Amino acid sequence: MNAEALTLPPLADAATLIAEMGARARAAAKRLGVAPTADKAAALHAAAHQLRAQAAVILEANARDMAAGKTAGLTAALLDRLRLDEGRLAGIADAVEAVAALPDPVGAEIERSVRPNGMELSRVRVPLGVVGIIYESRPNVTADAAALGLMSGNAVILRGGSEAVHSNRAIHAAFVAGLEEAGLPADAVQLVPTQDRAAVGALLRAQGLVDIIIPRGGKGLVARVQDEARVPVLAHLDGINHLYIDAAADPAKAVELAVNAKMRRTGICGATETILIDRAYSAPLAIVDALIAAGCEVRGDKAIAALSPHVEPATAGDWDCEYLDAIVSIGQVDGFAGALAHIDAHSSRHTDAIVTEDAATAERFLAEVDSAIVMHNASTQFADGGEFGLGAEIGIATGRLHARGPVALEGLTTYKWLVRGTGQVRL
Amino acid sequence: MNAEALTLPPLADAATLIAEMGARARAAAKRLGVAPTADKAAALHAAAHQLRAQAAVILEANARDMAAGKTAGLTAALLDRLRLDEGRLAGIADAVEAVAALPDPVGAEIERSVRPNGMELSRVRVPLGVVGIIYESRPNVTADAAALGLMSGNAVILRGGSEAVHSNRAIHAAFVAGLEEAGLPADAVQLVPTQDRAAVGALLRAQGLVDIIIPRGGKGLVARVQDEARVPVLAHLDGINHLYIDAAADPAKAVELAVNAKMRRTGICGATETILIDRAYSAPLAIVDALIAAGCEVRGDKAIAALSPHVEPATAGDWDCEYLDAIVSIGQVDGFAGALAHIDAHSSRHTDAIVTEDAATAERFLAEVDSAIVMHNASTQFADGGEFGLGAEIGIATGRLHARGPVALEGLTTYKWLVRGTGQVRL
Repeated sequence: MNAEALTLPPLADAATLIAEMGARARAAAKRLGVAPTADKAAALHAAAHQLRAQAAVILEANARDMAAGKTAGLTAALLDRLRLDEGRLAGIADAVEAVAALPDPVGAEIERSVRPNGMELSRVRVPLGVVGIIYESRPNVTADAAALGLMSGNAVILRGGSEAVHSNRAIHAAFVAGLEEAGLPADAVQLVPTQDRAAVGALLRAQGLVDIIIPRGGKGLVARVQDEARVPVLAHLDGINHLYIDAAADPAKAVELAVNAKMRRTGICGATETILIDRAYSAPLAIVDALIAAGCEVRGDKAIAALSPHVEPATAGDWDCEYLDAIVSIGQVDGFAGALAHIDAHSSRHTDAIVTEDAATAERFLAEVDSAIVMHNASTQFADGGEFGLGAEIGIATGRLHARGPVALEGLTTYKWLVRGTGQVRL
Repeated sequence: MNAEALTLPPLADAATLIAEMGARARAAAKRLGVAPTADKAAALHAAAHQLRAQAAVILEANARDMAAGKTAGLTAALLDRLRLDEGRLAGIADAVEAVAALPDPVGAEIERSVRPNGMELSRVRVPLGVVGIIYESRPNVTADAAALGLMSGNAVILRGGSEAVHSNRAIHAAFVAGLEEAGLPADAVQLVPTQDRAAVGALLRAQGLVDIIIPRGGKGLVARVQDEARVPVLAHLDGINHLYIDAAADPAKAVELAVNAKMRRTGICGATETILIDRAYSAPLAIVDALIAAGCEVRGDKAIAALSPHVEPATAGDWDCEYLDAIVSIGQVDGFAGALAHIDAHSSRHTDAIVTEDAATAERFLAEVDSAIVMHNASTQFADGGEFGLGAEIGIATGRLHARGPVALEGLTTYKWLVRGTGQVRL
C-alpha cells in the first residue's frame, strides 16, 4: 500500500508541505478568481479530453490500486467504488464537460441598489478562495471536485484516500494538463503528494491558507475532520430521513413512494430510513408488504408489528439509525403533530417527506419541518444536486451556515459589496 | 462589580445553565421560526414602548453601572460607551422600531424552478435557530441584537459585559415584556444571568444548542471567542482599510475623501488606516497637509516623509496597524499594480477604496481587490449596515463564509429546499 512513499522525498514536515501548497494555491486562486468563464471552460474541456486520451494510463493506474486493494482485503463494496472501466471513465469525462457548461457563478450580481446619496451599491459573487477537499475511495471525486472548484474560480487542494492513490494521480494529471493548455495556473488543482496522515492534520489547521474544508466520505472521516479542523468545515453528516404517510395519503402513491424512497438505492444519503404512518391511514399493511416483497427488512413499533408476522420489533436505537441498507423502521404516529414530534426528535435534518393529498397539511409540513430538504409527494431519493438541476454537487451540507442541502457552484462562492460613488463623504 | 452575584443562586455548573437556556431557546425558536411577521413586529413595538415607559428604571440601572465603572477606573472612552441618557435611550427605542419596519426575511423565496419530471423546487429563507451574542460595554447592543434576532425568527442568548450588567438587565426586561404582550415566547430573548466567565466558555462549546456565535467587541474578545468556540462563529476582525489615490484622482475629491475616511470618526472599523498614493499623482502634499490640519498624525514612507517636516517616518509595523485613532500611515505606490500588491499584503479585507476619475482603473480595482467591501470614490466610513440600507447591523463579518460585510436580518437566516411533487419516484 505504501509503495508510493518510496517515490517521494522524505516528508520532513507536513505543515511545511501544506504551507507551500497553500501559498501556491492562494496565488493560483488570485488568477483564477478573475479568469474569464471561457478560459475556465476551456481548461475543463481540455481536462476531459485528457481523461479520454489517457484512458489506458488511468485504467492501468486504477488496476494497480485494485490489485493493492484486493491484497489489503478491501470489501467488495469498497473495491466496486474504487474500480474504473472505460464506461465509468467516460462518465467522469462527461461530468467534467457538464460542469463546463454550467453558468459561471463568479461575478453574478445578487442585488443592486442606489442609496439616497447617489452611491450605487451592488453585491456580487466571488470565489471562496482555496478549498480543501478530503475524501475516500471513489476516484471520480478527484475529477468532480477539481471541476467544480475550477469553474467556481477556486483553487482546490485534494487529498484522496490511500487506496485510490494511483488513480487519483492519473486523473489529477489530466487537470494539470487542461489548466496548462488553457493558460491557467496548474496550481489551481493540487493533489497532496503523500498519504501521511499528518498532512491531513496540517490541512485541517491551515487557517489563512485554506478557506474551507469539505470532507466527503463516511462518518469516521467527517467526524475526524469536524473534530480537528480549525478551518471552517462544510460537512455532511447523517441522512436519517423520514417519509410520513398522512391519513390523507393516496394509497397507491404511498406504496410506490415508500418502496422507491427506501429501496431504489439503499446506500445513498437520500434514502429513507424511517417511515411514519398516521394512525388514521387506511392501508398500512400494503406498505409493509410491498417493502418486504421488495426485499426490505421491516422493523416496526407495536402497532406495525401487529400487522404482519414478518415485521421485526424495533428497538429504541432503530429510530436514530442510518441503516444505509435494505432495512427500514416503521412507526405509527398520531397525525401530523405526532409525525412532527418524531421528526423533531429523530431527524438528522437532511431530507424529510410527507405523502398526502391534503394541500393544507402538505404546506404545514413544508413550513414546520426544519430540514435541509422538505418534500411533498416525492421520493427522498431525489435529494441530489444533479436532480435539483445544480449540474453536479460537491456534497450535501447538513449544517445551517453558508450552504444547506446540495452544494454545487454557488455554494463554493461568497460575495463582496461594491460601492460606486462620485466623491460621497459620510456626514 | 460583582454585587449581582449575590442576587443569584450559586452557579453549580455553567454548562448546566447554558444547556437549560439552550433548550428553552430551541423551543422558543421553533415557535418564533413560524411566527407571522405582524406578531414579531408587534413584540418589537411593545418592547420599544417599554424602553420608553421604563426610561427612569433603565437610566437608574445605568447610573449604577456608571458608578461601579468609575470606581473600577474605567477609561473615559469606556464610560462614554456605557453611558445612557434620555436621548440615547430614545435612540435605542427608535432603532428597535426601525427593525420592526424592515422586510421579514423568513419565508422569502430565493429561487424557484420546475424540474423536467414536474417537481416544483424552491429555496426559501428560514431562521438560523439559536444565536449566541457575546459583547462588551455598549448596552445598546442588548436591544439591537434582541431586535434583529427576533425579527429574523431566531432565539437569542445574550451575554453582555460585566460593566453593563444592570443596564443590560433593564433593557432585556423590556423585550421580555414585549414578547409576552405579543404572545410570543419570552425565552426567545434570554440574557445569561451571571458574569461568571465559565458561562461564556459553555456557550462557546454549546454545539447543537447554539447554531452560531456572534462576538461584538474588541480584538481580545473576538480572539478568545474564535479560539475557544466549537460552535460556528461569525466574526469581525480588524478593519485595516486602505484608500488608494490613483494618478487620475480628482485632487479636490482626494483631499475630501482622505480627510473624511480617516478623521470623521477614528474609532470605527470602517475608518481608513492607510492611504496609498500613486507615484504619478500630482498633489500628494495637499492630502498630507489637510490631514495634519484636521489633527491627524501622519506617518509616511520615505517619499511621503520627504514632502513635509510634519510627517513622522513610518515603521514596518505601521502598515499592519489598526490605529482606531487620529493616526494614518501614508505610502507611495507604483500605480495600480503597486496599490494592489500593498493591499493584498496588508489589508484585513474589510473595506478598501480607490479615488480615481478613470473608469477602467476603478472597475479593475472593484474586480481585483478581494475585500468584503470595495469602493470607488466614496469614503470607507460608509462601511455600515445602516448606510447600506440594511436597516441595522449585528456586525461586519470579515470572514468569507455565510455572510460577508455588514450582517443584518438576511445574515441571520439560512434556507431550506422545498420540493412539491405529485408522486414522483426516482428512476
